[in-house]
Amino acid sequence: MKKAVVLLSGGLDSAATLYFAKKQGYKCFCLIFDYGQRHKKEINAAGKIAQVASCKSKIIKIKLPWKGSALLDKKIKLPINDCPLPAGRQGPITIPSTYVPARNIIFLSFSLSYAEAIGAKAIFIGAHAQDYSGYPDCRPEFYRAFARVISCGTKAGVEKKRITVKTPLINKNKAQIIKLAVRLGTPLGLTWSCYRGASKPCGVCDSCYFRAKGFQEAGIRDES
Amino acid sequence: MKKAVVLLSGGLDSAATLYFAKKQGYKCFCLIFDYGQRHKKEINAAGKIAQVASCKSKIIKIKLPWKGSALLDKKIKLPINDCPLPAGRQGPITIPSTYVPARNIIFLSFSLSYAEAIGAKAIFIGAHAQDYSGYPDCRPEFYRAFARVISCGTKAGVEKKRITVKTPLINKNKAQIIKLAVRLGTPLGLTWSCYRGASKPCGVCDSCYFRAKGFQEAGIRDES
Repeated sequence: MKKAVVLLSGGLDSAATLYFAKKQGYKCFCLIFDYGQRHKKEINAAGKIAQVASCKSKIIKIKLPWKGSALLDKKIKLPINDCPLPAGRQGPITIPSTYVPARNIIFLSFSLSYAEAIGAKAIFIGAHAQDYSGYPDCRPEFYRAFARVISCGTKAGVEKKRITVKTPLINKNKAQIIKLAVRLGTPLGLTWSCYRGASKPCGVCDSCYFRAKGFQEAGIRDES
Repeated sequence: MKKAVVLLSGGLDSAATLYFAKKQGYKCFCLIFDYGQRHKKEINAAGKIAQVASCKSKIIKIKLPWKGSALLDKKIKLPINDCPLPAGRQGPITIPSTYVPARNIIFLSFSLSYAEAIGAKAIFIGAHAQDYSGYPDCRPEFYRAFARVISCGTKAGVEKKRITVKTPLINKNKAQIIKLAVRLGTPLGLTWSCYRGASKPCGVCDSCYFRAKGFQEAGIRDES
């Protein structure tokens, strides 16, 4: 059975991506990052999702001893409904305060190390259209550049044992992702999107806003 | 004063690289990785070198919870004098058992995050010719690919605040690096190269062999 490493954040995008990878016939090995984010809710959610999906998961604990992101530094204000560009639109991008310097590059590097170590053929990540209007490391050109890093910077690449980064959601908006997730049987009720870590989602941060809008547009009730 | 992040391993290549960066007028911020290597000697050496060079240093502790390298797994035999291709020669590469899956990619990712967070213009890494006959992540094409990742996968890249990965030793052999290091005033006596962590270098592992050969060819006495 072909193996894949799946980046799992606890949010709905990565959960849908995991179920997509499973549907494609991959035996999935989930990587969850504890990188000093504002709260542990999403880490716990990710662990539960992996368990329900009957997949192995590993938590990678890293500490970035520098600031520069609202996700790492509680003194920086979280963005609230600041309406980035519509999904898929190309144009000058505005990078939100939740950008963590080189975060996806760090996550992908660990995934790549794991993939090489276990002989996995693919790395799945839930980057998507709505994000790439804001986050540079969610854009297709970044993934193309990273593919070249894999092919010439790893043992697997040199030995022509291809490892591919798969971004099945890259061209989808939130509503489309939610529909896909439901079709694949993703336990969306277990996912956590809110940037804050209160007992219930705050309902006003960017992440809550896009989630609510997505469910509304998809005509599906959010059971979380 | 322009800033640079310098990857410091405790070995002589990265120490020479630090002194090269200083000579180029950079204010250097050293990153040292505690990634589960066989021993802590090189980590301690790196800390001392940064201190002697009057540079700030940070230790990044990461755990790779998978195997696949003689540097992480004491059950895997260390290579002994297995004579890779001569420096600079292009040809089919043999990857030694000391290869750690995606190690330099992980290290560069953290350096990039740090560089973005502090507004550094360069990342210095001591990869060089002798290594790239064996390690895929020490070859020039890998660094070219990584440059593309920086330019399209980071906020700094998108905002045209260029961050360059500098590999000043890439075309040098060990003897040339030692001569350069001495010329730059590098405290080579503080560096540690041996893959083993005994009180004295073993003298037979690949790393000891290349160090001794380098000093001999350079006609310089190793004071470590």
